[in-house]
Amino acid sequence: MDRLLPSVTDEPHIIHEAMRYSALDSGKRLRPILTLSACEAVGGAVEAAVPSACAIECIHTFSLIHDDLPCMDDDDYRRGRPSLHRAYDEAIALLAGDALFALAFQLICETKGVGEDVLLQVCRVISEATGTGGMVGGQVLDMLLEGEEVTLEQVQEIHRLKTGALIKASVVVGGLIGGASDSQMRALNGYGSNIGLAFQIADDILDLIGDQEKLGKPVGSDIKHKKATYPSVIGIDESARIASEAVAAAISAIENFDERADPLRHIARFVVERES
Amino acid sequence: MDRLLPSVTDEPHIIHEAMRYSALDSGKRLRPILTLSACEAVGGAVEAAVPSACAIECIHTFSLIHDDLPCMDDDDYRRGRPSLHRAYDEAIALLAGDALFALAFQLICETKGVGEDVLLQVCRVISEATGTGGMVGGQVLDMLLEGEEVTLEQVQEIHRLKTGALIKASVVVGGLIGGASDSQMRALNGYGSNIGLAFQIADDILDLIGDQEKLGKPVGSDIKHKKATYPSVIGIDESARIASEAVAAAISAIENFDERADPLRHIARFVVERES
Repeated sequence: MDRLLPSVTDEPHIIHEAMRYSALDSGKRLRPILTLSACEAVGGAVEAAVPSACAIECIHTFSLIHDDLPCMDDDDYRRGRPSLHRAYDEAIALLAGDALFALAFQLICETKGVGEDVLLQVCRVISEATGTGGMVGGQVLDMLLEGEEVTLEQVQEIHRLKTGALIKASVVVGGLIGGASDSQMRALNGYGSNIGLAFQIADDILDLIGDQEKLGKPVGSDIKHKKATYPSVIGIDESARIASEAVAAAISAIENFDERADPLRHIARFVVERES
Repeated sequence: MDRLLPSVTDEPHIIHEAMRYSALDSGKRLRPILTLSACEAVGGAVEAAVPSACAIECIHTFSLIHDDLPCMDDDDYRRGRPSLHRAYDEAIALLAGDALFALAFQLICETKGVGEDVLLQVCRVISEATGTGGMVGGQVLDMLLEGEEVTLEQVQEIHRLKTGALIKASVVVGGLIGGASDSQMRALNGYGSNIGLAFQIADDILDLIGDQEKLGKPVGSDIKHKKATYPSVIGIDESARIASEAVAAAISAIENFDERADPLRHIARFVVERES
């Protein structure tokens, strides 16, 4: 990321500083690691997937920056530091988000050693996972249903779009660049959907019972914002059970993969065992 | 645009309504017309350029939506109607902008009948023109220099990035899809740079002496926001002279093109003669 982001010495300095402030923080890097691991799992050259992996992290970072803005969740902290609009101002945060979005596609388009047809598919998968059929659509649903009595189906739909779509795309993109066969791609799709579900349920649970220090943000923010979450609809125990089932389903989806898929298997377990 | 934008019957309705509210208004459509005209000028099939032309209009619309937000220019009106955050709210406006950005790349990636290598180049040109080396970079410079004493070079740089880059990209993309030769592409680059310059100077002048009714927004907003403009640095007459020179240079850049470039020639003259 450090190498692929514009330098702070490039004009205008402030926007590049702001982009780096958010993109180079202490995030888990789940999405880029999924991309690289999926590429490795199907026998691809991991190096070729690096720009696309970073592109997905740029998209994720842009969504967090915009999500934290006063007109959205109005969060003052992110990963233990002031959120970008608190560290700079709202206008810079808005534009840094937009710039990271644009940079994501630049990184993909400038990738060396990968076929143009594959790179175009990568652009397509990522743009679909970001728009109203993915992340943005999920954020809108999430907002519309804030404070409402929601069903399990509605929470599933919000999570599938808001976080699931980009996590699944991270896996699919790794498969595309790694040259996955059709059957491998089906397996990665199954893995990606389940890992996305498990991740978001674990996130909901951590927001209720996690350690504020380790999370780097206050717990209970979902309750404060009256967000629709798995625990709020079916309770913590049942949520944890569904998350574990999803992890098992993710690992089972890639059971025919050899030991090069071990990183994907480790990530699946990490997703529900993590503390932040 | 109407056909390529998501339907309001698609869930979540509100975001698709908001995207259509801004994208289907009474804009001039300068950028998509430039794309189609540049494609025609080099003998390409205009139909093949339609998705990319609409993609560029989506990018332009997203930039206007974010530009109008309270943390940016805080403009309540756009083209004679309430700006999007006034018609809906800030969160929907923010997300509708993001969604139009994502849709732009979806439209390009889904284009039929154009080579994947060409479509990838289109993605690259558009993402470069949008990020910190283009539109976003120009907006940041514009903000940083608000209220400052600026030089002509600084105004040139703001305009080149903020509006020039995407207008030039509109022309270049039409050339790419139309299969322009290297020499045709050089000519289109020259045309695009000059037309972008002329357009922005004309915009600055209209903001000073235009007809509020025809513009659909209050005149004098650049002065209100203490924006760096050509007339504020070198006066109206000298600004008008430079705009006319740029139009002549644009037309001269494509002098070797046949009558299929007449639409580009008409647009060049329209850019400085328009009243809105």
